[in-house]
Amino acid sequence: MRLAVIPGDGIGPEVITEALKVLAEVTPGVETTTYDLGAARWHSTGELLPESVLGELRQHDAILLGAVGDPSVPSGILERGLLLRLRFELDHHVNLRPARLYPGVRGPLADTSQEIDMLVVREGTEGPYAGNGGLLRKDTEHEIATEVSVNTAFGIRRVVADAFNRAEERPRKHLTLVHKTNVLLHAGSLWSRIVEEVSLEHPDVTVAYSHVDAATIHLVTDPARFDVIVTDNLFGDIITDLAAAVTGGIGLAASGNLDITRRNPSMFEPVHGSAPDIAGQGLADPTAAVLSVSLLLDHLGHREAARRIEASVAFDLATRDQANPGSTHAIGDRLAALVSSNARPVA
Amino acid sequence: MRLAVIPGDGIGPEVITEALKVLAEVTPGVETTTYDLGAARWHSTGELLPESVLGELRQHDAILLGAVGDPSVPSGILERGLLLRLRFELDHHVNLRPARLYPGVRGPLADTSQEIDMLVVREGTEGPYAGNGGLLRKDTEHEIATEVSVNTAFGIRRVVADAFNRAEERPRKHLTLVHKTNVLLHAGSLWSRIVEEVSLEHPDVTVAYSHVDAATIHLVTDPARFDVIVTDNLFGDIITDLAAAVTGGIGLAASGNLDITRRNPSMFEPVHGSAPDIAGQGLADPTAAVLSVSLLLDHLGHREAARRIEASVAFDLATRDQANPGSTHAIGDRLAALVSSNARPVA
Ligand SMILES: CC(C)[C@H](C(=O)O)[C@@H](O)C(=O)O
Ligand SMILES: CC(C)[C@H](C(=O)O)[C@@H](O)C(=O)O
Repeated sequence: MRLAVIPGDGIGPEVITEALKVLAEVTPGVETTTYDLGAARWHSTGELLPESVLGELRQHDAILLGAVGDPSVPSGILERGLLLRLRFELDHHVNLRPARLYPGVRGPLADTSQEIDMLVVREGTEGPYAGNGGLLRKDTEHEIATEVSVNTAFGIRRVVADAFNRAEERPRKHLTLVHKTNVLLHAGSLWSRIVEEVSLEHPDVTVAYSHVDAATIHLVTDPARFDVIVTDNLFGDIITDLAAAVTGGIGLAASGNLDITRRNPSMFEPVHGSAPDIAGQGLADPTAAVLSVSLLLDHLGHREAARRIEASVAFDLATRDQANPGSTHAIGDRLAALVSSNARPVA
Repeated sequence: MRLAVIPGDGIGPEVITEALKVLAEVTPGVETTTYDLGAARWHSTGELLPESVLGELRQHDAILLGAVGDPSVPSGILERGLLLRLRFELDHHVNLRPARLYPGVRGPLADTSQEIDMLVVREGTEGPYAGNGGLLRKDTEHEIATEVSVNTAFGIRRVVADAFNRAEERPRKHLTLVHKTNVLLHAGSLWSRIVEEVSLEHPDVTVAYSHVDAATIHLVTDPARFDVIVTDNLFGDIITDLAAAVTGGIGLAASGNLDITRRNPSMFEPVHGSAPDIAGQGLADPTAAVLSVSLLLDHLGHREAARRIEASVAFDLATRDQANPGSTHAIGDRLAALVSSNARPVA
């Protein structure tokens, strides 16, 4: 396996070190190349994602990213120029975000009896993220700003199909479309029709619909209702942060930016940011980065290795001292030991 | 005061009866005219909002709406044809949504120590709600759906100015802009620049910014951080449902659709829907409708009456049997008695 690694800024490099440690235990012989991209590079060279680097990234089987960003970089620069650019250039149309409340983890909800285990399949390359819009009469009192959400049958169908396939493989076989079809009539109509069409090929998957506003209510009052959620790029951005919060915080949330055709390498990253305030102190929890490695292995077909990592994380979360989970290194060491131990850890 | 009343469908008429009962106690001599709009009318006549009715509505000082909607009406019809049409025709640019966790009310969060008391000022007449978009190559594999978010300096400035004015009047004098400026660069730039500009006129209001995805996290992990939030139409739709959930549910959430210039009557409505499943059984809690009356009175300058209603609701919520709050009528009777009692209820 040829893996491109973008440690990034802040706590990115720290959590990536641990994630690679765990990866090495389950999949020896991974060939890694490190790419220096992010706030630091932008500051020193003005570069965000040089064509040559993009070309090299394409030669890999997958990309593992820590986190990029720093308060010293104006908002939007790294997002549009690096993170979103990678998603668009590498056609990462399925943005996969599991949200599971692991035993032992205390979320913010009072009702701790709910079994939360959902998988959000967020569209990753269109919708309001298309970058299509503009300013007219800038800096006058008549200024107008537009943002165009672009939604294609092609783009929606491939994501919806993937979501149904994933729902098929899960015990509950349930899929919820989240949108705002009563207001965004055009995009809503297209999303609804495609979900209906694809559902005909999956008669054993039950289908529900929720407006995005109502979905945020359900996520805090009845999150157990969700199994697979399929949604548009912006709604997915919003509800996956909320889903992560409800299952213990973005410190534990992993994500995969997938090209399911495998024409381009998929990219895996913890949902948390670069957290510059705690960088370099060994305070970051590498669990989300480690879970991102699990998603990476699953995507590349190493299902058994992926499951071993997830089971190890589950075991560690259930048994760790929640108030003092240990340093970044210590958690990484524990997880590496767990995955390599012959005794299969309890899920 | 001339009040137009749209009881609507489902539990709408029931909660409106109680809301008017309470209104009559604090403001005798209100002249009400009832307008029959909603699912029932659409089914029997195909009408949503006839021009003549719209003309009559304009002749009033305010509009009180119960709830409209029924599963028998295809999604989008009543929303676009009635609810949103009213907001657009009557230039309801400030969509006001307070979210307060009243003593005695149990929200879904485990941490019950937080004092949640925020006011969301949601833009109401533009953004992705403009209805601007379309379908191309419908029902082919090359179909494209667009939705255009339209944002004007004029439209944003009046809402931002209103939000700052409201922040000025609150003890904490804090305002948070919620947007997604790192992705929606054009609209985000315009919103940010206007907030910055208007903030210069309010040096005593502290200003913060939160991406909408992060805001959903804060709303469940640290909602007390918010005082006044100003945001766009769609983000406002989403976060106010979440804010309502976190403060005890949409059953308690009130809203005002304001034309702050007073050229058109403003409209007040509980955030909850028509809940046809519980209609006609006396099970609906009229508290949100009653709180909407409080917003109505405040808007029309009857501040003391508005405060009396809010204090009565606060007292009732703190003292009611939470498991058995009583029937729709019983709650309405209690609130009417509280507002009319000479002894000023405890807030
Ligand atoms: C950083 C930002 C561009 C990104 C997004 O909006 O997709 C982030 O919030 C995420 O969810 O990965
Ligand atoms: C019913 C719908 C059109 C409406 C909206 O999206 O604004 C509702 O969700 C609300 O928040 O008042």
